[in-house]
Amino acid sequence: MDLEKIAQSLDKVLDAGRREIPFGEVADYIPELAKSDKNALGIAIADRSGQVYSAGDVETRFTVQSISKVITLSIALETCGYDAVFQRVGMEPSGEAFNSIVELDLVSGKPYNPMINSGAIAVTDLLMGKINFTQMLDISRKLMRDDSIRLDEKVFRSEMDHCERNRAIGWLLKSKGIIENDVDEILKLYTAMCSLSVNACSLANLGLTLACDGADPVTWERVLSSDTVKVVKTIMLTCGMYDGSGQFAVEVGLPTKSGVGGGLLSVVDKLMGIGIYGPSLDKKGNCIAGGAMLRYLSSKFRLHMFQN
Amino acid sequence: MDLEKIAQSLDKVLDAGRREIPFGEVADYIPELAKSDKNALGIAIADRSGQVYSAGDVETRFTVQSISKVITLSIALETCGYDAVFQRVGMEPSGEAFNSIVELDLVSGKPYNPMINSGAIAVTDLLMGKINFTQMLDISRKLMRDDSIRLDEKVFRSEMDHCERNRAIGWLLKSKGIIENDVDEILKLYTAMCSLSVNACSLANLGLTLACDGADPVTWERVLSSDTVKVVKTIMLTCGMYDGSGQFAVEVGLPTKSGVGGGLLSVVDKLMGIGIYGPSLDKKGNCIAGGAMLRYLSSKFRLHMFQN
Amino acid sequence: MDLEKIAQSLDKVLDAGRREIPFGEVADYIPELAKSDKNALGIAIADRSGQVYSAGDVETRFTVQSISKVITLSIALETCGYDAVFQRVGMEPSGEAFNSIVELDLVSGKPYNPMINSGAIAVTDLLMGKINFTQMLDISRKLMRDDSIRLDEKVFRSEMDHCERNRAIGWLLKSKGIIENDVDEILKLYTAMCSLSVNACSLANLGLTLACDGADPVTWERVLSSDTVKVVKTIMLTCGMYDGSGQFAVEVGLPTKSGVGGGLLSVVDKLMGIGIYGPSLDKKGNCIAGGAMLRYLSSKFRLHMFQN
Amino acid sequence: MDLEKIAQSLDKVLDAGRREIPFGEVADYIPELAKSDKNALGIAIADRSGQVYSAGDVETRFTVQSISKVITLSIALETCGYDAVFQRVGMEPSGEAFNSIVELDLVSGKPYNPMINSGAIAVTDLLMGKINFTQMLDISRKLMRDDSIRLDEKVFRSEMDHCERNRAIGWLLKSKGIIENDVDEILKLYTAMCSLSVNACSLANLGLTLACDGADPVTWERVLSSDTVKVVKTIMLTCGMYDGSGQFAVEVGLPTKSGVGGGLLSVVDKLMGIGIYGPSLDKKGNCIAGGAMLRYLSSKFRLHMFQN
Repeated sequence: MDLEKIAQSLDKVLDAGRREIPFGEVADYIPELAKSDKNALGIAIADRSGQVYSAGDVETRFTVQSISKVITLSIALETCGYDAVFQRVGMEPSGEAFNSIVELDLVSGKPYNPMINSGAIAVTDLLMGKINFTQMLDISRKLMRDDSIRLDEKVFRSEMDHCERNRAIGWLLKSKGIIENDVDEILKLYTAMCSLSVNACSLANLGLTLACDGADPVTWERVLSSDTVKVVKTIMLTCGMYDGSGQFAVEVGLPTKSGVGGGLLSVVDKLMGIGIYGPSLDKKGNCIAGGAMLRYLSSKFRLHMFQN
Repeated sequence: MDLEKIAQSLDKVLDAGRREIPFGEVADYIPELAKSDKNALGIAIADRSGQVYSAGDVETRFTVQSISKVITLSIALETCGYDAVFQRVGMEPSGEAFNSIVELDLVSGKPYNPMINSGAIAVTDLLMGKINFTQMLDISRKLMRDDSIRLDEKVFRSEMDHCERNRAIGWLLKSKGIIENDVDEILKLYTAMCSLSVNACSLANLGLTLACDGADPVTWERVLSSDTVKVVKTIMLTCGMYDGSGQFAVEVGLPTKSGVGGGLLSVVDKLMGIGIYGPSLDKKGNCIAGGAMLRYLSSKFRLHMFQN
Repeated sequence: MDLEKIAQSLDKVLDAGRREIPFGEVADYIPELAKSDKNALGIAIADRSGQVYSAGDVETRFTVQSISKVITLSIALETCGYDAVFQRVGMEPSGEAFNSIVELDLVSGKPYNPMINSGAIAVTDLLMGKINFTQMLDISRKLMRDDSIRLDEKVFRSEMDHCERNRAIGWLLKSKGIIENDVDEILKLYTAMCSLSVNACSLANLGLTLACDGADPVTWERVLSSDTVKVVKTIMLTCGMYDGSGQFAVEVGLPTKSGVGGGLLSVVDKLMGIGIYGPSLDKKGNCIAGGAMLRYLSSKFRLHMFQN
Repeated sequence: MDLEKIAQSLDKVLDAGRREIPFGEVADYIPELAKSDKNALGIAIADRSGQVYSAGDVETRFTVQSISKVITLSIALETCGYDAVFQRVGMEPSGEAFNSIVELDLVSGKPYNPMINSGAIAVTDLLMGKINFTQMLDISRKLMRDDSIRLDEKVFRSEMDHCERNRAIGWLLKSKGIIENDVDEILKLYTAMCSLSVNACSLANLGLTLACDGADPVTWERVLSSDTVKVVKTIMLTCGMYDGSGQFAVEVGLPTKSGVGGGLLSVVDKLMGIGIYGPSLDKKGNCIAGGAMLRYLSSKFRLHMFQN
């Protein structure tokens, strides 16, 4: 692994991604998200020394959206333990789209996994009363080594005004006894975590924390336990890219999670974290340029977990 | 058709039903419903002369529950017209249980039919702003020739406190743009109509109104149009008994609708209306004794629509 | 009911149908069927006196296809009895397309109803060893009062060469223990019954036999029992038009069965039989002009079962 | 990684597995498989030096069953290329059981992945005419470094006599145009590959070949290309344990494939191959003792792919 070479090639990587932008679309189901610049694109790579290499729009702030599922799952594993979490949600990849109600209703009693909306809502319920948003924001800042992360109030309000489907999911979970707290309160916390304002560098640092087993690679301060990080990376690998997770694992071979805000978080285990911003999404809701960039990086620099 | 003979045989009919009671269960998902006397059983038959023959517990009041779907559909057809209603809901029987969310989510854009919860909620939304509960109560009283019908406040409140699944359905309909009004307001009206307190005689009279093409057979006052009644009876026949509707049509051959409160409404077209009360339900949520009684009546007195 | 008026209006009825022809398509999944003349259209009505009124292409022979399911079910009810048949197949309408494998596999142990392929294949299996094709052909001729009905060898062979999906259904039924005989032998008998060559008049006479409770209305020879006919008409009503059965029951209100060969069989109970030929099919696989013609007839002459 | 320590602990590993045996069942859907000794249990571990450490019943021969899907996929990737294979089958994990027909029929045009029956049958079709069974047997022997592997004729015949469901799958694939060759011929080749007679040591060697990037670690003879092995290991990880794959990836973190004959093949990338025999299966069809043994090994010797 020659990190310098990777750093030097970031413009080429950006080119590989840029070509895909026209084939995607900016998420428009929430007015605030629809305002994003479709052509924005940036990539940041954080290595074990703590240094961050970057190219493109890496300062642009955007909301973390579904990538918050990684943070929420991590906090829940630390706070409530493995057994409590997986009594509520499964660990199986889902062949359906990211907010499917069908499978939730057909499955005997729990959401497929914590990377889809129903699963993350169930995990959020578990956290209520044990930790509040301010504390979760604080952990998020540590995980991403970025103290300027804050709640994007506009996106938060826009999402709360357009979360009919999540309300349906919430009430269905409630009717099945999977969640216990007030549906509205759970959705507020869930949506607040989705509305954290980050940039590509924050995500690269989050990836690095996961690559480094949950510890800050510079200060050696441990933020998450080793066991938590192992579980989170595995679930990112098998479930992180919605119903394109299997193909992504084959082609890229890195634990990765996407958000409809355009973010992409990827982990090169033991080596580095990758953060990408590009709001043009493919049909499965994943950053279209980011997928191409990760395929390029994985192939050129042999980053696939099963690469020889 | 020898109505006198039917009237004389009502005790035998009651016996045929009573034998089935032990094999059913009282609905227990709402505390107020669970209080019903499992062994209660009554049948009332109203003929064209307006006379009502009855046996058993025909004075006992109970909530009409899903039988209100027949009334709501009738009012919607009168108020909004055939096209507006069936732009919102389909007319196909549903192979799933009575409050299935799965099919709603899989189907391209509307609930299967107006006899399942999702369909009735969509029809209720259509009525909002055009008619209020007091007016609907008034029509209900006319249809059942029973001025003492009122809202059972206890059941209403108990149901509003336990309608998580209906809330999930409501929000799912909202997320798909099938309903327009406030979910909570729609559910209140929907649940109020389910909470009308009737008895077996009221249902027999409702059946008679439908048998007589929408007119009061004694005063000849028309409550519903001929077209509305034709549609309502057909949908009762194909969809009225949840996922047991097909078998019921074969074995009994009469448009019939059940409610989890224990009510059963049946129509012998052009001849009479039948109302039954028996809160012990079979696995599909239909009055278990009532099914047996209708099979007995249909077979012995040749009431099946395709009987020679 | 003024039969003479109906007879006189047949050209108008034909016009009502002809307008729909361009919006449909001839079935093309079997080469022999694809050869049909898309613009062909004919209607025949047989009344209780045995007289047949007709207009259009009523002499053209075509294969009966799924309308044979009505005949096979009738024979099975007569030969094996109600209990044996409905131990094998259900009576519930199916929300899916006419040859759905999904529901067969999801349903615990039997096909939804005898009007879909899986159900008819299961019913055919039941008949094997008890009755042979020659005998079934003979009954078919009697039911349709048409001695020239024969097997269309070309269509039969074409279908046997293109019945991969039915083979899949057959083996799935076999794997579930629903059928007992050799899959290939069952499919031969099933396909032979689909390949009977009839015309609109034959179907009108079949409808008349069903309208007359299973007896030839002229000779009074009984071909089917009263109970069998009651069951068959009900199932035609609830399941005869695939996943458009509910809407058809509301709009037309007559037991009807369609075949992809372009045939349509309809029963005006106690009064007459209707046979239609028109190979242009709607998206659900039903004769598109025939649907329009039956809606016209039902509305104009008040033939709906629940018409006042 | 201290291989010697692992070798010394194999008896303890065996104990950890043996405790689970009573909670499983021997597969009984094929008579020949039902004859297996439920209490048999063995484990073999092959390291890069080519040495094999073992304990328990490692000489017992059994049929490879679904583990052959790994071999067939490997051969198909080598013979036909990545694009041709994944035009036919997907790469997404399947939330359903191992031979589900439902999802095959619901999915637009191809089986979910090559590790379920429908996918493996589609891959086998692709190979027909390009390679014959004798050649595939020869490759299998090389991959497992075991020249005594042969076809178990009894199991082969028993399976061919009880493969109704696979026939249904085959005809469904045929009806959808996914496979091209004669269904019976494809099933013969598919079933022959399932009927290869191996032992735990053969599987350990197969695992080693995959761990060593497709080359024999002693002779350095390359049997599979690096790219093929990367794909195969990823798909084993995400799809190898049926609908328990996600949980297995979290808990064990090793590419693994099970067979209903009781075999388990696991790969510790770059280090070793593990072969297990234990015919007592859990409810998902995976060797129940083997799962426990791999969890024990992964945890105690830190073999999880994302272990720090």
